[in-house]
Amino acid sequence: MPKKSFPLPRVYGLLEPGPVLLVTTVRDGKANIMALSWHQMLDFEPPLLSCVISEDNYSFAGLRESGECVLNIPTVELAEKVVGCGNTSGRRLDKFKAYGLTPSPAKLVKTPLIKECFANLECRLVDRTVIDRYNLFILEVCQAWIDPTVKDPRTLHHRGWGAFMVAGHTIKLPSRMR
Amino acid sequence: MPKKSFPLPRVYGLLEPGPVLLVTTVRDGKANIMALSWHQMLDFEPPLLSCVISEDNYSFAGLRESGECVLNIPTVELAEKVVGCGNTSGRRLDKFKAYGLTPSPAKLVKTPLIKECFANLECRLVDRTVIDRYNLFILEVCQAWIDPTVKDPRTLHHRGWGAFMVAGHTIKLPSRMR
Repeated sequence: MPKKSFPLPRVYGLLEPGPVLLVTTVRDGKANIMALSWHQMLDFEPPLLSCVISEDNYSFAGLRESGECVLNIPTVELAEKVVGCGNTSGRRLDKFKAYGLTPSPAKLVKTPLIKECFANLECRLVDRTVIDRYNLFILEVCQAWIDPTVKDPRTLHHRGWGAFMVAGHTIKLPSRMR
Repeated sequence: MPKKSFPLPRVYGLLEPGPVLLVTTVRDGKANIMALSWHQMLDFEPPLLSCVISEDNYSFAGLRESGECVLNIPTVELAEKVVGCGNTSGRRLDKFKAYGLTPSPAKLVKTPLIKECFANLECRLVDRTVIDRYNLFILEVCQAWIDPTVKDPRTLHHRGWGAFMVAGHTIKLPSRMR
């Protein structure tokens, strides 16, 4: 199923549940992938978020230098590839090849999307002032894509040391909270 | 079951999956509760995290003035109380009374824990420099408590407008990621 453009004001609903992300960046002309769970929303519209990428990660310089990345949201079918991306470094490995993931061109950034993920968020780095203190990158989502057939994505939620909670069912309650 | 002290280096494993939190604060001598999903880890040890609390929330001034709060993690049995806390304001309502939640004394802060939540994290506000820009509070967890009988907590994960994903089962993979 080809992806469809997803409304930016609804992006928070994809990130707020706390899924593990696969972050793509480009460094020295080569695309890399890392697994990431330390992220949060900062604002609804335009969708603004923060994430921690350690300076030990190969992706740190890629994001800082290019000023852009893509946040790809995997589901449980990709769990082994997610762990593979988390266990290895882009210094030594082409992770797209190693884990059979397909780079796909983005619309507004030069960093590729990961085709196998059900959602992809093209992001620009909009504030560099807290990178030094906390390795904290402030990103704005400028274009979002979704596989419209995935209604209740079985996302992965990291509990530490290889334990992942898999998203369960969704309940509806009479909430006025956006 | 009485709560047990929980090791601080393991706290990230409670927050990283992205559960909805009930945040307790004290303002003008009265304890209040709010629901919160915009949080992330910043560091493992001591456990450091950030969270957004809007200046429109009654809890904003409580946290800023007291310099402390407690993050309480509810499970699905408390879903209606969570939505109640999210739909109302501490300006007009004593939420502990309104939703039948029990305040319980903390060890290192003056803000009460919520007894019905399976985990409670006593926090101190350690960095005020990004409050003005993003309503972003940097907190350090100084004491953590857990109900040791809860192994796979059925936490709530907000998808927006009253839709909550309920935590499913946990899988184990051979990951070297902490």
